[in-house]
Amino acid sequence: MSNMDSVRVRVFSLNCWGIRYLSKYCPQRYAMIGEMLYKEQHDIVLLQEVWSEKDYLFLKKKLASCHPHSHYFRSGVIGSGLAIFSKHRIRDTFLYRYSLNGYPYMAHHGDWFGGKAVGMAILNLGSLTANVYVTHLHAEYSREKDSYLPHRVVQAWELQQFIRHTSAGADVVIVGGDLNMHPQDLGNRLLRAYTGLQDSYLETAKFDGCENGMTLIADNPFISKKELVPFEKGIRIDYILFKGSSKADVHCDSMSTTKGSVPNHPFPYSDHEALTAELRLEPHTPAETGSDRKLKNKDSTTGKLAELVDIVTEARTEVKVGLHCAERMRYTAARTGVMGLALLFLELVIAAVPYLALGAEQPFPRTSFYLLAVLCFAILLTTSMLYIFYTMELKSLQGAEDQMRLGIGSLQEKLKGFCLAQLHNPSGRPPEVQEPGAFEPEE
Amino acid sequence: MSNMDSVRVRVFSLNCWGIRYLSKYCPQRYAMIGEMLYKEQHDIVLLQEVWSEKDYLFLKKKLASCHPHSHYFRSGVIGSGLAIFSKHRIRDTFLYRYSLNGYPYMAHHGDWFGGKAVGMAILNLGSLTANVYVTHLHAEYSREKDSYLPHRVVQAWELQQFIRHTSAGADVVIVGGDLNMHPQDLGNRLLRAYTGLQDSYLETAKFDGCENGMTLIADNPFISKKELVPFEKGIRIDYILFKGSSKADVHCDSMSTTKGSVPNHPFPYSDHEALTAELRLEPHTPAETGSDRKLKNKDSTTGKLAELVDIVTEARTEVKVGLHCAERMRYTAARTGVMGLALLFLELVIAAVPYLALGAEQPFPRTSFYLLAVLCFAILLTTSMLYIFYTMELKSLQGAEDQMRLGIGSLQEKLKGFCLAQLHNPSGRPPEVQEPGAFEPEE
Repeated sequence: MSNMDSVRVRVFSLNCWGIRYLSKYCPQRYAMIGEMLYKEQHDIVLLQEVWSEKDYLFLKKKLASCHPHSHYFRSGVIGSGLAIFSKHRIRDTFLYRYSLNGYPYMAHHGDWFGGKAVGMAILNLGSLTANVYVTHLHAEYSREKDSYLPHRVVQAWELQQFIRHTSAGADVVIVGGDLNMHPQDLGNRLLRAYTGLQDSYLETAKFDGCENGMTLIADNPFISKKELVPFEKGIRIDYILFKGSSKADVHCDSMSTTKGSVPNHPFPYSDHEALTAELRLEPHTPAETGSDRKLKNKDSTTGKLAELVDIVTEARTEVKVGLHCAERMRYTAARTGVMGLALLFLELVIAAVPYLALGAEQPFPRTSFYLLAVLCFAILLTTSMLYIFYTMELKSLQGAEDQMRLGIGSLQEKLKGFCLAQLHNPSGRPPEVQEPGAFEPEE
Repeated sequence: MSNMDSVRVRVFSLNCWGIRYLSKYCPQRYAMIGEMLYKEQHDIVLLQEVWSEKDYLFLKKKLASCHPHSHYFRSGVIGSGLAIFSKHRIRDTFLYRYSLNGYPYMAHHGDWFGGKAVGMAILNLGSLTANVYVTHLHAEYSREKDSYLPHRVVQAWELQQFIRHTSAGADVVIVGGDLNMHPQDLGNRLLRAYTGLQDSYLETAKFDGCENGMTLIADNPFISKKELVPFEKGIRIDYILFKGSSKADVHCDSMSTTKGSVPNHPFPYSDHEALTAELRLEPHTPAETGSDRKLKNKDSTTGKLAELVDIVTEARTEVKVGLHCAERMRYTAARTGVMGLALLFLELVIAAVPYLALGAEQPFPRTSFYLLAVLCFAILLTTSMLYIFYTMELKSLQGAEDQMRLGIGSLQEKLKGFCLAQLHNPSGRPPEVQEPGAFEPEE
């Protein structure tokens, strides 16, 4: 086989909705998923919400012959829920835990305990090195009043950073997972614009699946139609993304989704639809198309850079909203804590009065005294934990905001370089534009 | 200037010991540090333990003219304490938070609250792209009974992963910081062997500083000699490491450390000594030395790979020790919790007896009843939090162990390839060695 032969790769992604004892028909569905994966023999299988290691081990055993290589990404209290199965040897893995992931006291939303993360696996596809990423971002529980939006934007920011910084040595990049974002949502635009990743649904030559590539559909029996409002038919929030490099082009030949039911089975694999993309990798020598590509892209680069600056600016605004919110919450926690302390102090003073004014009678029934003291301590404990938590949230948001500011500065610098080069007339520009400090990202 | 001119880079690293109100002479020392940095005009300044943002901003203002580019890495409750100042534009930054970092209840050691991390900054040095890392690993409080060893080994593991995976696009890699590990400690060997980073103290042509390059010395007035036992004179735990690439060689022309005192000042900059390395980057075209280098290195590659397998195996053993320990601690927490619950149940039963057997007298003084109930709840709360915490610790340790197993498998695979190639006689080998499953990392 020549080095330059094209390589076909079938990639599968599914949010398995695998909460043991809580998700409906969990064991039956895992059995179905295992059967299907065994039959389909995809090259790369990316799974999310495999919350129980036992279920991972069940699949691992089932797929031992067709997918001898696998990895389960551990993090947080419950785990990241991320797993990868591969026909091809996994050379290396790495996990990045998002710095923000909801609130521990929103236990019914559960995201915090899941320890959301992005997992990376490096494997060889033919002669090419592929970096494969699997991730699951924080859920959107309400589109109108989405209090988790800043968290999800920061997750998208960290996801694009992680992919960009770890994929420099990769010939091919493949990303799959439940992004919990609509195609045109801020975080999605941020991810695609910064990394140059392409959406297999938009790029595919052939498509077979739900209308508009939706992956959370009203026809799925596990979905409550109420939750989908105002998107009656469903939404597209699961993706398979890809990117080539100077050493390989990637094309999506066909793509499909399940359609809310599975033939010969009473229910579907999950509450999400499964995605399958058939990618074709075309290796080439870097010189072959490198310069060619540069020329072709030069015209659009300026526009893309300007668009990226806009997107990052929008993300930065969103993070700032989150910052204000976290600051307010921390302030409220601090104020409540101080009130708890004052109450405790007051109680102690009242209790001390009879001891000081000897002989006076006990002003407090003993029971109420202890109950009140317990209440004060509970307030103090809770508020200090919340204070610490909000401080950590603030630090993460500030960190992301800082990095975004720096990113905007670098992009503007690059844009300036491009503009000057395109004008072919740098000396005709007013001097203040050439001044390096003009787009200084540092304040 | 030709593209091929060598570039000289002066790198500085210091653990600033900057705990406001607790570290001795903190404001005075920051003033001294600011003065010195302003005078010395290093290209890159890597600082650790800058715990207060106010102190970072003080330095930023002071160094605005000589180091216009800077970044403060935020994480955890207090922050990561990491800062970078640079003469050269910082193009991009990224932060990785270590998954393990001590215990929150060991508040007097404080590491957990610091949110230890590794920060990366990408900058241009001449025509070269440099990835610069600054980090601070978990402190070693007792060398004999180092209960944090598994945490530090996992941090070293994650540090090498982060550097390896993010530096594929870099021409030059520079790492500085307080690793809290002696030169031959497991984590240090793991880091150097896996990444190929070189120690500027060992590679330097000229050295001026403390004996054996020590950075925590008995002569420093802020150091209690008791803590250094059994290393009376001091230890070397701060490092500047570097690595070239196919596009550039890196040499260390000279290196120096401070010597426990600063001329004309009553006390030194910090309890750690400061490090300065003068690096010389020699750009070359990839073809120039690429193949040459490969030939030169081929003989030693097998040995290095075998050594690396040994080191990772040793690290895996250490992580397993940590795993057993965390499992035991979690079990203890669970058992204590169950006992608290049993006590509460018993108390309620005893209290309920008089109500059931009507007319019997109250067996419990009311005060003791409430106090006991509060105690039970406190036990339950504490043990459940500890249980959650130890579960997270377990997940991280298991994750690292998994990755190490995978890493060992990949390395052995590579080693096998090299051995076969070196033998030039693959058919003469017994067939089971060629069997791909022989070094299978997956169980």
